[in-house]
Amino acid sequence: MRKSNKKRPNHLAKRRAATARDDDEIVALKLPAATPLSPEMAAYFTKCEEKLGFVPNVLKAYAFDTAKLSAFVAMYNDLMLAPSGLTKLEREMIAVAVSSQNRCYYCLTAHGAAVRQYSGNPLLGEHLVMNYRVARLSKRQRSMLDFAVKLTASPWSVEEGERERLRRVGFSDRDIWDISAVAGFFNMSNRVALATDMRPNTVYHGQAR
Amino acid sequence: MRKSNKKRPNHLAKRRAATARDDDEIVALKLPAATPLSPEMAAYFTKCEEKLGFVPNVLKAYAFDTAKLSAFVAMYNDLMLAPSGLTKLEREMIAVAVSSQNRCYYCLTAHGAAVRQYSGNPLLGEHLVMNYRVARLSKRQRSMLDFAVKLTASPWSVEEGERERLRRVGFSDRDIWDISAVAGFFNMSNRVALATDMRPNTVYHGQAR
Amino acid sequence: MRKSNKKRPNHLAKRRAATARDDDEIVALKLPAATPLSPEMAAYFTKCEEKLGFVPNVLKAYAFDTAKLSAFVAMYNDLMLAPSGLTKLEREMIAVAVSSQNRCYYCLTAHGAAVRQYSGNPLLGEHLVMNYRVARLSKRQRSMLDFAVKLTASPWSVEEGERERLRRVGFSDRDIWDISAVAGFFNMSNRVALATDMRPNTVYHGQAR
Amino acid sequence: MRKSNKKRPNHLAKRRAATARDDDEIVALKLPAATPLSPEMAAYFTKCEEKLGFVPNVLKAYAFDTAKLSAFVAMYNDLMLAPSGLTKLEREMIAVAVSSQNRCYYCLTAHGAAVRQYSGNPLLGEHLVMNYRVARLSKRQRSMLDFAVKLTASPWSVEEGERERLRRVGFSDRDIWDISAVAGFFNMSNRVALATDMRPNTVYHGQAR
Amino acid sequence: MRKSNKKRPNHLAKRRAATARDDDEIVALKLPAATPLSPEMAAYFTKCEEKLGFVPNVLKAYAFDTAKLSAFVAMYNDLMLAPSGLTKLEREMIAVAVSSQNRCYYCLTAHGAAVRQYSGNPLLGEHLVMNYRVARLSKRQRSMLDFAVKLTASPWSVEEGERERLRRVGFSDRDIWDISAVAGFFNMSNRVALATDMRPNTVYHGQAR
Amino acid sequence: MRKSNKKRPNHLAKRRAATARDDDEIVALKLPAATPLSPEMAAYFTKCEEKLGFVPNVLKAYAFDTAKLSAFVAMYNDLMLAPSGLTKLEREMIAVAVSSQNRCYYCLTAHGAAVRQYSGNPLLGEHLVMNYRVARLSKRQRSMLDFAVKLTASPWSVEEGERERLRRVGFSDRDIWDISAVAGFFNMSNRVALATDMRPNTVYHGQAR
Repeated sequence: MRKSNKKRPNHLAKRRAATARDDDEIVALKLPAATPLSPEMAAYFTKCEEKLGFVPNVLKAYAFDTAKLSAFVAMYNDLMLAPSGLTKLEREMIAVAVSSQNRCYYCLTAHGAAVRQYSGNPLLGEHLVMNYRVARLSKRQRSMLDFAVKLTASPWSVEEGERERLRRVGFSDRDIWDISAVAGFFNMSNRVALATDMRPNTVYHGQAR
Repeated sequence: MRKSNKKRPNHLAKRRAATARDDDEIVALKLPAATPLSPEMAAYFTKCEEKLGFVPNVLKAYAFDTAKLSAFVAMYNDLMLAPSGLTKLEREMIAVAVSSQNRCYYCLTAHGAAVRQYSGNPLLGEHLVMNYRVARLSKRQRSMLDFAVKLTASPWSVEEGERERLRRVGFSDRDIWDISAVAGFFNMSNRVALATDMRPNTVYHGQAR
Repeated sequence: MRKSNKKRPNHLAKRRAATARDDDEIVALKLPAATPLSPEMAAYFTKCEEKLGFVPNVLKAYAFDTAKLSAFVAMYNDLMLAPSGLTKLEREMIAVAVSSQNRCYYCLTAHGAAVRQYSGNPLLGEHLVMNYRVARLSKRQRSMLDFAVKLTASPWSVEEGERERLRRVGFSDRDIWDISAVAGFFNMSNRVALATDMRPNTVYHGQAR
Repeated sequence: MRKSNKKRPNHLAKRRAATARDDDEIVALKLPAATPLSPEMAAYFTKCEEKLGFVPNVLKAYAFDTAKLSAFVAMYNDLMLAPSGLTKLEREMIAVAVSSQNRCYYCLTAHGAAVRQYSGNPLLGEHLVMNYRVARLSKRQRSMLDFAVKLTASPWSVEEGERERLRRVGFSDRDIWDISAVAGFFNMSNRVALATDMRPNTVYHGQAR
Repeated sequence: MRKSNKKRPNHLAKRRAATARDDDEIVALKLPAATPLSPEMAAYFTKCEEKLGFVPNVLKAYAFDTAKLSAFVAMYNDLMLAPSGLTKLEREMIAVAVSSQNRCYYCLTAHGAAVRQYSGNPLLGEHLVMNYRVARLSKRQRSMLDFAVKLTASPWSVEEGERERLRRVGFSDRDIWDISAVAGFFNMSNRVALATDMRPNTVYHGQAR
Repeated sequence: MRKSNKKRPNHLAKRRAATARDDDEIVALKLPAATPLSPEMAAYFTKCEEKLGFVPNVLKAYAFDTAKLSAFVAMYNDLMLAPSGLTKLEREMIAVAVSSQNRCYYCLTAHGAAVRQYSGNPLLGEHLVMNYRVARLSKRQRSMLDFAVKLTASPWSVEEGERERLRRVGFSDRDIWDISAVAGFFNMSNRVALATDMRPNTVYHGQAR
């Protein structure tokens, strides 16, 4: 959407008139800034650059409207980082398995890198990107991904039997909520990314190989 | 999840030990309160009761954790109520068409009622619940729903051609973002509702028939 | 197809030359009367008006050819009303579950109303229209609908195992025939209705809510 | 269901107690005669034996209840033999293309033979059984089968565009009704046959090769 | 591709300039000879004519390039004729069940004939062409075909559970390799045949009826 | 299947009795050597080690039977390396797009690396693994992959229209054969790899990133 500018966090740089898409545009839509970035969100972007070395493109994509950006960031951070019976790695594993089912390039790239980083196991990231069934997982984690992928592919068919299978491998009802909420969230994000042809920061590709 | 209590907004009533689900429980999960309801969210619930006469069950379902509830409410209200090139009715139409594709009982009930109310056309609500293709829509609205349903059913196949079709019937790039974001959001909510067997307030069924 | 005429059972009123479809036309096809209505069928229409207050549109749609109408009526009445190990409500439940799988607007409307009426449970009608898996059914009725929906969605895969599952919840072989025949019939009717864009009488929408 | 008895048209021979299915039983259900065969239907069976040399097994399968048999025969004969803008061969072609989509052994066998007989072209029968797209058809007949197969596989998606395609190759609205009704009928019969594991008369296999 | 020439094995007869396809052309592609037939392959064709009375069209189709033909023949003969825990009939049964799933006219015709010949049971050939589930098979052969068809329809979902099911009915690990390799091979051949509209020798249709 | 042995090309090392699979076993089947490696194949393995630094696991998997190995190698090398109107990169692109549709871990890994190497464009490899539609391709290459993926997902639906689309972007009939043959081959290899849980050499993961 916007050009990444190495010098300063100028996330709202003006767009050229050209209709052809620049290679460095993040989404396939011309989105003029609807609202200026709030101080909180500007601070959050700065924090991203300090901690990660870059602002993830999905955040830049949402930055045309600070209310939308704030809502996305609040939900994302709660789901992926707040205390939960699921580890952060497990939440990233769900993100990748769901994104593989939906074939979402953005999320496979960004969260595939996260799985490699959190797990220290580059192969695990590849397995989840390509076909989560080839990963050698504990029964707990396999059940978790089976649930998330079924919920993605045929949501109408998830019933008490599916929840019982999770309980039998040790998940609490609260854990089941979290699995469902993370799987649901990436079914949303995958679709926003695919509908807008969102492109990930290229730095992800080399991370934690 | 929690019993609806007609007298006061006691959204965190204690749960019985019984494993069988009460008919008036909102979700099929036993979710103990993780955090107390914040003053903002308590005020929001009161406002719902004043304006709607009830608190929508989805909000009660999220109330076990006030951060999750806040994030959901912020995103929902921005998507469905903030200024947009799409009317509120059009956003509800997307909600129902997506929920029909996913066969989500909760969202079909709640947002089917909203379509009936906003449109003043009870048949339109039924059409979108059953098969949006039978609704007699403008080319603009039909294209909008075709996009949302394709994004739901085969998200990997949405490309520039699909975006171009929306532009040709008059949607701006910002509108395309909003269509995608609303369709994405209900792909999330449908899955959270289906995964937890969430039940809608019964009052929806009779509204605006 | 034909305008409903409140004064007399004139089911074969002449059609206008206009190619655009009238809002009160029952099907999207211009079907000139091929044969006049037989006295038996005329009497049947009168009986419908006396008992129901209207002639169901599907009958008017078939009325262009009295042999086709008679055959349809004979098969329909035998399947849905003749003695059977299935109650009339159960046969209507199959009708709605099958029609939901096929997303048939006509049959969901007409038979959704019938489920509401026979059961006295408006919610049951909504559940079957939206996703039969959310209805709280006996094991017998759930097995019956699972069979009917599988037979609808992947008929090639129905084998002895599926029949055995029905026998185990108490269905006789004759009952299995009836479940299959009703499910089969609505797979036919759904397709005739969808292929011709058949529209239900609007009166159904408000019945037994 | 019942043993074929070469000597006389004893279609209601008593069943053995054995639970295992005889090789010569027509369906996988034990269906005791619910009503005796009416004189009309007995005469019809005799006529079948005189004209065809045998009673088609589907008729024997329905014979346990003469009302069901009569209704089936009336609808079948009207659809397949009454005057229509479609030739009898074309109606049989639809039967086979639909039955191939549903993988119905009974109907592929019986109506595959009918296509070979009516067309005098054994290859045409094989093509329609295996993959109707390989048959070298006129544009009219190809469009007819495309419509019937789409109506079979995804009935919810048939709309005015599909009807227009038929009109453009010369079909009248009445013809479109007939194509839809025949395609619908075999979507019913395929499911009754598959649900009951109905077996065709072996004589069909060698006919018109 | 090339005209069958009754007098001599002239497999590389010159092509006419016409763009329309001759009825006796084997594939829908104009493939000029890239390499001459090697002496080995010429001898193999002669052997086919002596043993079968004709050269199978698939071999003529590959003959435009002798390296491709040799590779195909070597793999085919090893898979279908070399020693294996699977009988030759069982390998042909897999070929037909896979080809039915993919609806490949060429392979259904050629290998349907082979099943009829090897088994001496014409009905078995028809069952496998139409819907392998109707064939009355041993548990061993049914499991073998279930595996092959699942591997065809959803290869990503074949895991240790599927292999274990084969072992439980007596297949060795080597047999599982052979089942997989034969099923895989026909998933290749079906696609080459369908992509090129390959036509089988008409002689197959009448064989072993 | 066999342990990789760094010192010498001992591809037929004896297997332990343990039923549990070693992490370094290539397939999930215990395949005792059926035939010794021929001198030609032993030489080929040596050549692989010299040129690539390793023997691809798929070759070791086939090595239990030298006739099967030879046939596989002959077909593979002809398809992927012999002169063709398709570049070697284009053939690898087809391999990856097909393998992504089938979710084959082995082939995505090995041929994803090949695309990265041949193209010098690591992103192209990732795009084809994840969703080929996001790759920015020439019309020619996009049409080629659309054809290959359609042939993979619904082979029965590939007809003259699909071939015409390839001709319109410049492919010759011979090129169409090659596209079909390569796509077909990976539909075979994907299934053999998935059916046996074949594991790629780990070295691929880091190549040409």
